[in-house]
Amino acid sequence: MNTLSSQPYKGARDYYPEGKRVQNYIFSVWHKVSKSFGYEEYGAPTLEPIEVYAAKSGQELVNEQTYTFTDRGGRQVAIRPEMTPSISRMVAAHRQELAYPARLYSIANFMRYERPQRGREREFWQLNVDIFGSDGVGAEAEVIILSDSIMREFGAKSSDYVIKINNRKLINFMMAQYLGLDAPQAQLMVKLFDRKDKISDKDFVDQATEIFGDWAEIGLKKVEALLGAKTMADLPAEIRDSSSVREVQELFTLLERAGIKNLTFDITLMRGLDYYTGMVFEVYDTHPENNRSLFGGGRYDGLVSAFGVEPISAVGVAPGGTTMENFLSVHELLPKLLSTTDVYVATLGDTAKEATKLAHELRSKGINVELDLSDRKLDKQLKNVLKKAIPYMIFVGEDEVKAGKYALKDVINSKDFKLDFAGIVDQILG
Amino acid sequence: MNTLSSQPYKGARDYYPEGKRVQNYIFSVWHKVSKSFGYEEYGAPTLEPIEVYAAKSGQELVNEQTYTFTDRGGRQVAIRPEMTPSISRMVAAHRQELAYPARLYSIANFMRYERPQRGREREFWQLNVDIFGSDGVGAEAEVIILSDSIMREFGAKSSDYVIKINNRKLINFMMAQYLGLDAPQAQLMVKLFDRKDKISDKDFVDQATEIFGDWAEIGLKKVEALLGAKTMADLPAEIRDSSSVREVQELFTLLERAGIKNLTFDITLMRGLDYYTGMVFEVYDTHPENNRSLFGGGRYDGLVSAFGVEPISAVGVAPGGTTMENFLSVHELLPKLLSTTDVYVATLGDTAKEATKLAHELRSKGINVELDLSDRKLDKQLKNVLKKAIPYMIFVGEDEVKAGKYALKDVINSKDFKLDFAGIVDQILG
Repeated sequence: MNTLSSQPYKGARDYYPEGKRVQNYIFSVWHKVSKSFGYEEYGAPTLEPIEVYAAKSGQELVNEQTYTFTDRGGRQVAIRPEMTPSISRMVAAHRQELAYPARLYSIANFMRYERPQRGREREFWQLNVDIFGSDGVGAEAEVIILSDSIMREFGAKSSDYVIKINNRKLINFMMAQYLGLDAPQAQLMVKLFDRKDKISDKDFVDQATEIFGDWAEIGLKKVEALLGAKTMADLPAEIRDSSSVREVQELFTLLERAGIKNLTFDITLMRGLDYYTGMVFEVYDTHPENNRSLFGGGRYDGLVSAFGVEPISAVGVAPGGTTMENFLSVHELLPKLLSTTDVYVATLGDTAKEATKLAHELRSKGINVELDLSDRKLDKQLKNVLKKAIPYMIFVGEDEVKAGKYALKDVINSKDFKLDFAGIVDQILG
Repeated sequence: MNTLSSQPYKGARDYYPEGKRVQNYIFSVWHKVSKSFGYEEYGAPTLEPIEVYAAKSGQELVNEQTYTFTDRGGRQVAIRPEMTPSISRMVAAHRQELAYPARLYSIANFMRYERPQRGREREFWQLNVDIFGSDGVGAEAEVIILSDSIMREFGAKSSDYVIKINNRKLINFMMAQYLGLDAPQAQLMVKLFDRKDKISDKDFVDQATEIFGDWAEIGLKKVEALLGAKTMADLPAEIRDSSSVREVQELFTLLERAGIKNLTFDITLMRGLDYYTGMVFEVYDTHPENNRSLFGGGRYDGLVSAFGVEPISAVGVAPGGTTMENFLSVHELLPKLLSTTDVYVATLGDTAKEATKLAHELRSKGINVELDLSDRKLDKQLKNVLKKAIPYMIFVGEDEVKAGKYALKDVINSKDFKLDFAGIVDQILG
């Protein structure tokens, strides 16, 4: 038989206990904050029909990045590249049974065929938080406050990140009314705005000129006025008075009332996905070594109705696991994480029966116990305990059994105790 | 645009909050018991190269049940149909870095293209618990005691299930030495034993006769003697004295010492997968309406070395989520599960600002709060709370704000309170 490779699939990660501890820490904060806002967990299938994404997610995602194949029953399916279409489908299917607003969250894995690089994997984990059936800007406010609470729960300061906000309706108004572009031109211009930070100023002007055609001279001046606006007050008067700007202002008021000050209005913020219909936002890392978008979200009122039911409004956000891990790492916010095992019980001599009994009794007190019956040398056992980052170790020798007192080692603080059963339980749980 | 179907992929499940609560309850017991035995969590990729399964998992699984496809880079991959090959690959890759015995567990989803039926889904969730680097029968004992602890933690009585045990080495000895079969005949006979409960006695005899060929008469008598053995003591003497029977006896002693009495030796227990090399076992439901195998496991010492490293011994077990749910359901062991949201805060009149503040303060005490600012009629709001199974509800009216005391409703027990902030916190957390 040929030897098989022991490497994981390209762009996917093997999570050994050490790496899994970090992921579980991130997940635990996500669970905690999502639940604290009254969101309830759900789960969705790994596979969806490919049409679900073709509808509204955008061409690049579907044609270049999805893992698509035909199943043994001839169905064209994709491994989910994102959650929004799945949860929209689920809401559509139970439209009558759900109580609104429906607050739902999940933590799940996704796959996209992209070139793996820092913070981007082919298989990645995401939290998805969505509220369905709430039309007012209060829904956006709640989802952004929840996003901010996640950052705070991780220990981030408001100077560590900034929340950028824009509005798709405002973008549409800008493109059609202010810049006078038709639909195909507007689509190109949105994509150009989206790429602005990734291309040179000259390339930007050249491509904008091409989109405007005959209107280039006046058009470029207007674009310049738009891009110069650092706050809503700087916007050209015709835009400043539009209803969508008023909506953004209302959102700012709600967020500032909740104590969020690291907010900025960003007219170039587009968000890649086609399904957004209103407010869009992004949490952006301000660290010089990780100056990038961390995660984002927005309103997508038209997606549920693609599944053949009456429209249900929706706002969502989706932080990613690896991006979050990178953020915590550059800002030195990752706590030191130990094993979930509390204590390692080792035998000294012929005490297997007694050690097994002790392990059983400790477990009944809610203590996680690894039991080693190998009777190996103590230094080897201690090395194992350190490798596994287990905080305590107990030696069960014949003398200890007779005395009813055991040697307990606090491995982290290098302290040794001689304690009876109750004392051990207190020391470990205390 | 055509309307998209709102149905999930065939054989996969949409987990709405109610269903997810049940799944989370099952997962929480799995996490708790696995951790209590010192197993640490890991995670593995969704995709693996198809060869990983072709090596040792068995022809049916690979040729008929895997979700295989070619990725955009030309790699032949499969959505994992089981975890054992993935974790064996991971152990091989970090052979030097791991501390042995390595105790590892995961809760993950898998896909197999099978006909969906009760307790069998195309996408399913499983706990995988594995110990690597432990040769003695103590490893099997630990994994079986852990399995039994899971059943106990769910509230099962020992009369609700039985643990069946057999040994692949004993099977091999039986087939070669006792029945005198060559390797291809032995393989057919193992498959026939495995199917025994699913076919008629006549079919069994016919097929056995065909396998034996010239030896049929004497062979059938020997098979009869084997199948008549309800305990190890009943086995024909030549088998009873083999080293593999002694091993099984040793395992029984360890399990009985741990208080497990619902054990049975079952010479027809084969376990479908090709990679088992020693002890195999199955937890079997004794309920008349669900008389079936719940889950099983065994020793597979040859799998890690398929990845090009020195052999590392391994014993594992893998309970499934839906099978477990069915078990809990027929035995009426599923607890009544409420929402993870503790309290629903509703406004009465123009109190949005105060209700928001109250929600924020309750969250800071660790209480999960759903905040509704819609100012809808109370009966509608209460209906929502009941639908979502949220245990408490608070009404924030203008009088309540002035008095600093709020109306708190215990929805489950239909009790009403008038409490200040501290009182509310005590009532909900207490």
